[in-house]
Amino acid sequence: MTNNLGEKARKLHKENRGKISIQLKTPLETKEDLSLVYTPGVADVSRHLVDHPEETNEYTWRGRCVAVISDGSAVLGLGNIGPNGAYPVMEGKCALFKQFAGLDAVPILLNTQNPDEIIETVIHIAPSFGAINLEDISAPRCFYIEEELKKKLKMPIIHDDQWGTAVVVYSGLLNACKVTGRNLAQTKVVVNGVGAAGSAIIKILHHNKVTNIIACDSNGIIHAGREGNSKHKSFIASITNPEETTGRLADAVQNADILIGVSKADLFTETIIRSMNADPIVFALANPNPEIMPDDAKAAGAAIIATGRSDFPNQVNNALGFPGMFKGLLDAQVTNVTLDMLSHAAVGLSEVIAKPDHEHIIPSVFDPAVVPSIASNIIKS
Amino acid sequence: MTNNLGEKARKLHKENRGKISIQLKTPLETKEDLSLVYTPGVADVSRHLVDHPEETNEYTWRGRCVAVISDGSAVLGLGNIGPNGAYPVMEGKCALFKQFAGLDAVPILLNTQNPDEIIETVIHIAPSFGAINLEDISAPRCFYIEEELKKKLKMPIIHDDQWGTAVVVYSGLLNACKVTGRNLAQTKVVVNGVGAAGSAIIKILHHNKVTNIIACDSNGIIHAGREGNSKHKSFIASITNPEETTGRLADAVQNADILIGVSKADLFTETIIRSMNADPIVFALANPNPEIMPDDAKAAGAAIIATGRSDFPNQVNNALGFPGMFKGLLDAQVTNVTLDMLSHAAVGLSEVIAKPDHEHIIPSVFDPAVVPSIASNIIKS
Repeated sequence: MTNNLGEKARKLHKENRGKISIQLKTPLETKEDLSLVYTPGVADVSRHLVDHPEETNEYTWRGRCVAVISDGSAVLGLGNIGPNGAYPVMEGKCALFKQFAGLDAVPILLNTQNPDEIIETVIHIAPSFGAINLEDISAPRCFYIEEELKKKLKMPIIHDDQWGTAVVVYSGLLNACKVTGRNLAQTKVVVNGVGAAGSAIIKILHHNKVTNIIACDSNGIIHAGREGNSKHKSFIASITNPEETTGRLADAVQNADILIGVSKADLFTETIIRSMNADPIVFALANPNPEIMPDDAKAAGAAIIATGRSDFPNQVNNALGFPGMFKGLLDAQVTNVTLDMLSHAAVGLSEVIAKPDHEHIIPSVFDPAVVPSIASNIIKS
Repeated sequence: MTNNLGEKARKLHKENRGKISIQLKTPLETKEDLSLVYTPGVADVSRHLVDHPEETNEYTWRGRCVAVISDGSAVLGLGNIGPNGAYPVMEGKCALFKQFAGLDAVPILLNTQNPDEIIETVIHIAPSFGAINLEDISAPRCFYIEEELKKKLKMPIIHDDQWGTAVVVYSGLLNACKVTGRNLAQTKVVVNGVGAAGSAIIKILHHNKVTNIIACDSNGIIHAGREGNSKHKSFIASITNPEETTGRLADAVQNADILIGVSKADLFTETIIRSMNADPIVFALANPNPEIMPDDAKAAGAAIIATGRSDFPNQVNNALGFPGMFKGLLDAQVTNVTLDMLSHAAVGLSEVIAKPDHEHIIPSVFDPAVVPSIASNIIKS
């Protein structure tokens, strides 16, 4: 990107030396201030927390502090760029946490890409944080890393590329079905791409009783009998494709209601859209260039089209999800994030739009109702 | 501590939920702001840092970001209280970094006390930070951990309980010698206590050509031939006690000019002070109760007495050292902290007091000249 925006971004980052900074919550101007914030007064707080470790989140910033942890192995369209390249992305995410949810977040960049070393490192620094946002870690490593951490740590842990995306997509689908008069559980859904985002979308839909899901990867339709299925693909097969359909994407989309792309630019032709049921719903989420451009999708009959782009309606933007999700989880001191909670978060997000229409199934990231609606909904039982 | 100060400290911590918070350095109110701070604009910054990883400190907060890392194994007079108890101390230290040096610091609490696991964890998260402040890690583990990290990482790494204290003590001794008309290198110095602080004080004095140092521990004078010397004590013996003196503290202090206690309350009797040379210099640094109270030391003839207490003159306060030390090291992008640099830092601190006298050998932590003087001096060659 040698365009204006890129130049402007570089200038902004260099002039400000980054995007976040620490501020004090209490004055530190006098000897007495110092004796309260640090020695000797702080010793009393320490003693209290030795006796009541469960109150640490109330006496320190930990209760609102999220670690944004990445090994830089799968950074937004840039690929495996490592910790230095990934740094401004993670710092940017921390800025969003502050702006949208009032949370304090810290970029943690790792210089290992070994899954077991990542797991061990995160466990060792876990007492520093109230919650952990795993970010831009490549699939399928991300599945193992998140699962193991969730087994070993009692705190909110979310790989946002999976669950942030899944929450926003599921929320958008709820409103898209409302607009097109469908019951989501009764629809046929095709998901093209089973990386972090695609897999989580499938899992949240499956959890919410969508039974007719077909997943495709670059080799076509995933089914239980396909040769060479990895452990991950076998699991995907086990919760999708009940009729063991085989073939390519073009076969999968026959009579589908919903087509979700989390793959590559230009993969959805007009023919593909035309072979779907009437008034189809298309989420073309490849970044920065979607699987089909909105105008082309509409020309082929799509009733609703969502993309990852801010220059078209219905933007699926992760920034809609994670601030409210972590706010709700931290406020409720949740120790284990469940698919129920994530589903509630999606419902909360969908309800921000009172009357969805074809071009308004997903709210703006600047809508002040987004974070409170997700945060208050995520822990509903 | 069930007194007023302790209660006030607990109230302050609970009401504010800690002492630090994140703030944004750039607005995040509009779509354009978002596109610069996060996607898609940030991708250009990432690409730039992939090509120029050495500029990461200039484009992110990393260039001013210090990790305050502790396993909670040796917290200020509280002992081994672990990560929850240690949390408010580390967060307090982060507040001091901000207030005094404008640096951004983040508390990192570990849930392992295994030295090799600590080393590996710090190495794995090192790309997140510009510098590392190891804190309240017990001796002798702290020596091994710091040494190994310094071998493996090219960034400023300081165990503050060692070097922060050593810098302030050495600085105070320079002024104390000025006041009492001594040349520090010619003095006889006794150091009682060879934990983190005592060892580092001995090392910085040795580095600065003080040859006549006697170190004592609870078993008396340390000498090369003493049975059962650990690797650490053998090293201390190798740079002290050139005449292989043996005996107890009372033997060591005969004709000493300087007595430094980094041990326990009440260990220095008036008899001990009286057996030193005329106009002795006494640093009684045990916390919160010194080895001898200032009035008793003076009654026994001490010309200069320094303690760790803020309610007496000449307070040896670590907060005088680390803010300026890290500021100077980060500003100069130092990759390896040396004893020369630490010695220069001490000289910078001592020079803050233009005309030291018996009750003013160490400046106040609120003196605005402290941080710039240390920071500008530390990298002088």
